[in-house]
Amino acid sequence: MKIIPLLLAALLPLAAYGQTRQAGPWWPNAEWGPMDQAGASNRITPEKIVAAFRLVQTGRVYEIGQVYERGMPLGGTRDYALRLVPAIEPTGTNRVLYNDEFLAAEVGQVGTQFDGLGHVGGEVRYADGSLQRVFYNGFTTGEMNAGTGLRQLGIEHIKPLLTRGVLIDLPAYKNVQRLEGGYEVTLADVRGALQREGIAEGSIMPGDAVLFRYGWAQLWGSPAEFMAARLPGIGLEVARWLVERKVTVTGSDTSVTEVSPNPTGQTIPVHQELMMKNGIFNIENMTFEELAADRGYEFLFVATPIRFEGATGSPLRPLAIR
Amino acid sequence: MKIIPLLLAALLPLAAYGQTRQAGPWWPNAEWGPMDQAGASNRITPEKIVAAFRLVQTGRVYEIGQVYERGMPLGGTRDYALRLVPAIEPTGTNRVLYNDEFLAAEVGQVGTQFDGLGHVGGEVRYADGSLQRVFYNGFTTGEMNAGTGLRQLGIEHIKPLLTRGVLIDLPAYKNVQRLEGGYEVTLADVRGALQREGIAEGSIMPGDAVLFRYGWAQLWGSPAEFMAARLPGIGLEVARWLVERKVTVTGSDTSVTEVSPNPTGQTIPVHQELMMKNGIFNIENMTFEELAADRGYEFLFVATPIRFEGATGSPLRPLAIR
Amino acid sequence: MKIIPLLLAALLPLAAYGQTRQAGPWWPNAEWGPMDQAGASNRITPEKIVAAFRLVQTGRVYEIGQVYERGMPLGGTRDYALRLVPAIEPTGTNRVLYNDEFLAAEVGQVGTQFDGLGHVGGEVRYADGSLQRVFYNGFTTGEMNAGTGLRQLGIEHIKPLLTRGVLIDLPAYKNVQRLEGGYEVTLADVRGALQREGIAEGSIMPGDAVLFRYGWAQLWGSPAEFMAARLPGIGLEVARWLVERKVTVTGSDTSVTEVSPNPTGQTIPVHQELMMKNGIFNIENMTFEELAADRGYEFLFVATPIRFEGATGSPLRPLAIR
Amino acid sequence: MKIIPLLLAALLPLAAYGQTRQAGPWWPNAEWGPMDQAGASNRITPEKIVAAFRLVQTGRVYEIGQVYERGMPLGGTRDYALRLVPAIEPTGTNRVLYNDEFLAAEVGQVGTQFDGLGHVGGEVRYADGSLQRVFYNGFTTGEMNAGTGLRQLGIEHIKPLLTRGVLIDLPAYKNVQRLEGGYEVTLADVRGALQREGIAEGSIMPGDAVLFRYGWAQLWGSPAEFMAARLPGIGLEVARWLVERKVTVTGSDTSVTEVSPNPTGQTIPVHQELMMKNGIFNIENMTFEELAADRGYEFLFVATPIRFEGATGSPLRPLAIR
Repeated sequence: MKIIPLLLAALLPLAAYGQTRQAGPWWPNAEWGPMDQAGASNRITPEKIVAAFRLVQTGRVYEIGQVYERGMPLGGTRDYALRLVPAIEPTGTNRVLYNDEFLAAEVGQVGTQFDGLGHVGGEVRYADGSLQRVFYNGFTTGEMNAGTGLRQLGIEHIKPLLTRGVLIDLPAYKNVQRLEGGYEVTLADVRGALQREGIAEGSIMPGDAVLFRYGWAQLWGSPAEFMAARLPGIGLEVARWLVERKVTVTGSDTSVTEVSPNPTGQTIPVHQELMMKNGIFNIENMTFEELAADRGYEFLFVATPIRFEGATGSPLRPLAIR
Repeated sequence: MKIIPLLLAALLPLAAYGQTRQAGPWWPNAEWGPMDQAGASNRITPEKIVAAFRLVQTGRVYEIGQVYERGMPLGGTRDYALRLVPAIEPTGTNRVLYNDEFLAAEVGQVGTQFDGLGHVGGEVRYADGSLQRVFYNGFTTGEMNAGTGLRQLGIEHIKPLLTRGVLIDLPAYKNVQRLEGGYEVTLADVRGALQREGIAEGSIMPGDAVLFRYGWAQLWGSPAEFMAARLPGIGLEVARWLVERKVTVTGSDTSVTEVSPNPTGQTIPVHQELMMKNGIFNIENMTFEELAADRGYEFLFVATPIRFEGATGSPLRPLAIR
Repeated sequence: MKIIPLLLAALLPLAAYGQTRQAGPWWPNAEWGPMDQAGASNRITPEKIVAAFRLVQTGRVYEIGQVYERGMPLGGTRDYALRLVPAIEPTGTNRVLYNDEFLAAEVGQVGTQFDGLGHVGGEVRYADGSLQRVFYNGFTTGEMNAGTGLRQLGIEHIKPLLTRGVLIDLPAYKNVQRLEGGYEVTLADVRGALQREGIAEGSIMPGDAVLFRYGWAQLWGSPAEFMAARLPGIGLEVARWLVERKVTVTGSDTSVTEVSPNPTGQTIPVHQELMMKNGIFNIENMTFEELAADRGYEFLFVATPIRFEGATGSPLRPLAIR
Repeated sequence: MKIIPLLLAALLPLAAYGQTRQAGPWWPNAEWGPMDQAGASNRITPEKIVAAFRLVQTGRVYEIGQVYERGMPLGGTRDYALRLVPAIEPTGTNRVLYNDEFLAAEVGQVGTQFDGLGHVGGEVRYADGSLQRVFYNGFTTGEMNAGTGLRQLGIEHIKPLLTRGVLIDLPAYKNVQRLEGGYEVTLADVRGALQREGIAEGSIMPGDAVLFRYGWAQLWGSPAEFMAARLPGIGLEVARWLVERKVTVTGSDTSVTEVSPNPTGQTIPVHQELMMKNGIFNIENMTFEELAADRGYEFLFVATPIRFEGATGSPLRPLAIR
């Protein structure tokens, strides 16, 4: 049994962190200490959970994630192959039959996907002039990466997300069916949409889940359109606002949440701003069509990332409950 | 895009069911009609959800599932292989780095696993004398099976499980560290344990999650012991009681929940009784050590099976919240 | 170590074959006995090999298989996903770096594929009136199938193919660039092509590899065209001629070798004729463009199916050497 | 269809190589030019092939690779999972049945494995003082690595290996059943063994396959013993002799071919010497028991690495033919 040795191996490089880890451009500003791997999921305290549960009035559940299926839109060069492994003949006096399934996929980065803190980082110049390849809280690729999964910042460190959810319905605010590809959602848009929904900006509190509807789930059945080169989304302006509001998680109904291409010319800078610098999570490929139709703008948000040790993300079945 | 044709293909064989499906030994007794694929998850109504949320007082969350990790106990000939797929060089002016992971596994039948209704069935003699290979609600292997997953009874049909949970702590009742391998838990044991916990048997209501602690999670780190040939668990007596109480889901801290080998000489008959005949789900390889230590016998149970289309089961991150 | 028990398990059901196996419509006509699993590869004797090697004069090697690559034409719902698993940091005083790769695929049924004897069978009525689901030599699905691979007729039983190869160049004979989709190659075509090539029909001997060029490899780079609904190929007439000539292996530059759809309305009947009834192998998705350009109609044929235990087929790197 | 763009993408970074690639400690000494990716397989010329075929006298074929099977010895954290994907019901008027298989594995680095030139490299100090992470012929990890496989030095560049093979039978020379774990085979051993076999050292020519029997295949059925921490094998002394003799390929019946641990304290330095510096291949986990019993010391060696684009290695069915 290799679990114990593996754990020891994982812990060893961290043993002397207090002394040896260099100060990066943002680290050691992590609110939860230099060893933290849970990021903004730390904000979901028991009190936060109890308060969020009070939002449930009718028990109506909305599925705000997609079903994982052959032929769904896939990003980049990812694949998704599921096969049935059936028993051909019954066994036992009671003639049992059974089926298993075998999945081969980028399991945390296909379909509705929860991006963990080991998914996106960057090469950053440190105070001593050195270039470091780091992720959240300054963990380096050398510390993190192993062939069989992340040794640091694996998805298993993330706490369950049981919190207040707020949906920001941008097509409803802009009075369009869906946002145009390439459109960057501004902070003014966000404020306008919140006002339309009757939600005070100041009510957005630490630990909340703030989710953006762009209307893009309408295209889920047409992978080429859904995965267009130009996608609507938030930019750095709104990302920084999310950081200020200290949300735990954001998400949307596109495959990246952020505007693409980014007007700054940078590559997914919102991912870096949220995850690498601030430990805030991002859920992609959600769907809010039904929730929006019911004007479900505030709700209990439930999402429990699967704890695949060392994974960069997780498949997810996020729910909005009212 | 093949989603629409696939859906049509899946629906076609069902079109004339009302006329053509034969009456099996139990079907058409399914409470939710001959087309139902959600089984006992139908019992989790909005009212049930609202009532369950009222059980939460402190917001304390217990993880009652295991982390999925290399080297964990695996049943039969199942495998679990996760690999990191990293970007080697940063890209873009902002020098982004990213990692994906690739998983190859019996994704719904490893670690803490939620058994769906396409997982266990049997060959059954029908009223007309014919032998049929069927699963829940009389769906036949011919209707169900395709190389790329189940066309009927896939896990995607199961509703989220947000309900009252009850833990039946058998080692505490029997005053042992854990039950012995091969011991069949009796209904008297269950009643004694409930009495010890101060939970009235009559309080177990339709839609509840009734979970059994055998103490076996203590062995999770020793796969050979955990996967012993002789395992403690419930038998047909307790299974029938679960059916009478109309629970939605059961589960335990062993790899089969039911006693093994079964004293009747049958092969996993409790699986057939619960799933095939009654649409009741089973969660295996859970852990209740922390919950039991806190005497957490009644709680909000949260479990959201991942909707992998056509899968027989799902990985799961079940929670008990008090 | 489970190899020994697995072998025993595999052998047990065969122990009493002499007594219990029923006579099928073709079996027990298998030339190599009721236990044979090597089929027509038995025809490649040492003498045959020595004779075939004498065909080599210049040592010129032709690759007559395709490279396996992302985006290649795939049949049915098969997938092919290869991922690099790199070491991120050098290790050791000599600073070693290494890469592995991880493949998830229908490994024996993608790209240039060697169809083994467990790949195609059929439901057949036996002399006693019973319907049997059988493959080559009467092995039944019950005997053969296990979740982790075939227990009988796995590809590991096939002997290496080192034999005389004959290319039948049909487009050259018909004076077209490539055959039309849906065209059935007749025996007259085959004889005409052989005559044009200066190869006597009577020279085709037991154990030979007889390969058909349809010109279809020209479309390999356009998967939709390559995998068209209508494909040229041989039908039952030519298949029976191959059986009479006692060839060991046939093959072609399409994904099925046989005409599609078959004019008889049957589904891949040539596969059944060759494999199920006569133990003759079929290699698909080859390429003969270069070989044909050099008028390489007779050659040493080299193909060594990879011995993945229990696989239905194998990836292959077939060679023609002159 | 993405094949053409992928090819272009692969070619672009090489376009200006003549100008920009730095001179490494060994590169540009590659005999076959700065763009070469075929390494020592270039030595297998048509003339070499014709000469090798002349070694065949009886046509007797020896399998010198292992069968790939569940439970076989696996190095490091590699996995091998094969699953059967069967059709459950017959289709068509001719009632066809078929099976596919799905494989998830480090396909080129399990079982009998052919190590390609993208498998092992190192961090090397260049003439300009820079540290470069390079493989054969100076290809850098930045040029080579992509998530979906190697863009340079993939196994598809290797030419088929049809050459003279020489087996160096060390246990026979040392009069032991097998070499001891940790024993480094010396050049004196090699010369002694050759002399015993009646093969003149000077007869070993460019392009030959020189294979080492340590007797370790006797342990193949006992994975823990086979994968012992201490393994016999050649060291740098013999590796340099192989380089001088200009062999194309070496190989053995252990999982690394080279002595382990290496007495110099280095990590697999023979791999670096052969592959990274000299483009010479290595085949691991072979078996020579039968060949040695027949005193088969000189033979035609046939090995055709499967051309999985971008793979680091290949499964293999190597043959010795006499």
